[in-house]
Amino acid sequence: MKIAILGTGPVAQTLAAKLDSIGHDVQLGTRDVATTMARSDKDAFGNPPYPVWAAAHPKVKLGTMASAAAHGELVINALSGAVAIAGLSSAGEANLAGKVVLDVSNPLDFSKGMPPSLFVSNTDSLGEQIQARFPAARVVKSLNTVTASVMVDPQQVAGGEHTMFVSGNDPDARRQVASLLKEGFGWRDVIELGDLSTARGTEMLLPLWLRTWGALGTPMFGFRVVR
Amino acid sequence: MKIAILGTGPVAQTLAAKLDSIGHDVQLGTRDVATTMARSDKDAFGNPPYPVWAAAHPKVKLGTMASAAAHGELVINALSGAVAIAGLSSAGEANLAGKVVLDVSNPLDFSKGMPPSLFVSNTDSLGEQIQARFPAARVVKSLNTVTASVMVDPQQVAGGEHTMFVSGNDPDARRQVASLLKEGFGWRDVIELGDLSTARGTEMLLPLWLRTWGALGTPMFGFRVVR
Repeated sequence: MKIAILGTGPVAQTLAAKLDSIGHDVQLGTRDVATTMARSDKDAFGNPPYPVWAAAHPKVKLGTMASAAAHGELVINALSGAVAIAGLSSAGEANLAGKVVLDVSNPLDFSKGMPPSLFVSNTDSLGEQIQARFPAARVVKSLNTVTASVMVDPQQVAGGEHTMFVSGNDPDARRQVASLLKEGFGWRDVIELGDLSTARGTEMLLPLWLRTWGALGTPMFGFRVVR
Repeated sequence: MKIAILGTGPVAQTLAAKLDSIGHDVQLGTRDVATTMARSDKDAFGNPPYPVWAAAHPKVKLGTMASAAAHGELVINALSGAVAIAGLSSAGEANLAGKVVLDVSNPLDFSKGMPPSLFVSNTDSLGEQIQARFPAARVVKSLNTVTASVMVDPQQVAGGEHTMFVSGNDPDARRQVASLLKEGFGWRDVIELGDLSTARGTEMLLPLWLRTWGALGTPMFGFRVVR
């Protein structure tokens, strides 16, 4: 399947590497290809610059946001929350129309210190804001409740005995994402919460996620709905 | 131990019945004792009126908020979130000073329709608001992430293999609550998240809790931190 991933950071790279490894045709989207390919410094988290990763993943293409979105039958938003709507706007409404847009971002606001708060929550969510801005896209929120490496390899944590949530207005789009999670990434417990307003719940899990990271000293955990 | 429980609703009754059954000396606090004892109709959830429950639990006393709080060495806030600070104010600052105040309430706002949103979240929490209003109390937030019957009997759900969180500024108060959870109620996985600002995380779990209830069709579940 042709897949676009908007973003070139650790989340985008992790998703791209996995999707490439299971046979998908992946193109990443960035604001400016020349700038991204000219990077030579490690990022703020100590990860190697994009060209180092790209050299190790020669089948993964890089293009503009619009080029990637035009390529993808499925579009994944792996940009940080603060620039998600700007990035999707660069991708272009026409390149998103009718497609499943899987939003894995979180509305983290780092401007008030650490741990971050959320720049939208409670009576709205970033998932809903994206859907409102791009009404012809079929937005699905998922994967935003675990660290990047766990998104694509849930078995890393306690053999995979934890839960992934899926929110979206279009039941068929939710089912397509649930299928990718199960058959592509190995998630065994996937709960379809319902329409996109349920993304308020998973985005608002982030403050507990961040504090649990603090208490445990590692981001390698997941939440399981035990019933 | 002498324990005060503010409130007479289903959460207060459930906590009182359990604490009474394991040998504690429990007094419930209500705004007006005569009014509470005159109730003869079922509540909004179909539960029998307080006097019916009281007749079945003759050792549990009922008093004013102030009487109950004066009685308790531990004070539990089991009022609904919207009236928690008013109820604690009736209990009286002097009756709370120096005591562990276990806050199990959630800041649910039903005024905007169902499911409820939160009337405080993100950069503040009800737990922190209570601590700010009663600085001499040692406020601990816990038990607010499960339905009442699961609070006191976690084994009802999947043999108890789920997690309870504890937040509070006073480490000794957190430890006292964690000990009650483990030895009194049978919780096996208790995570001390840290200071009361971490209650933002557990209170903000409510939107996901409510939507998961909707998806599963039952409130008999818990979240386990799988690691």
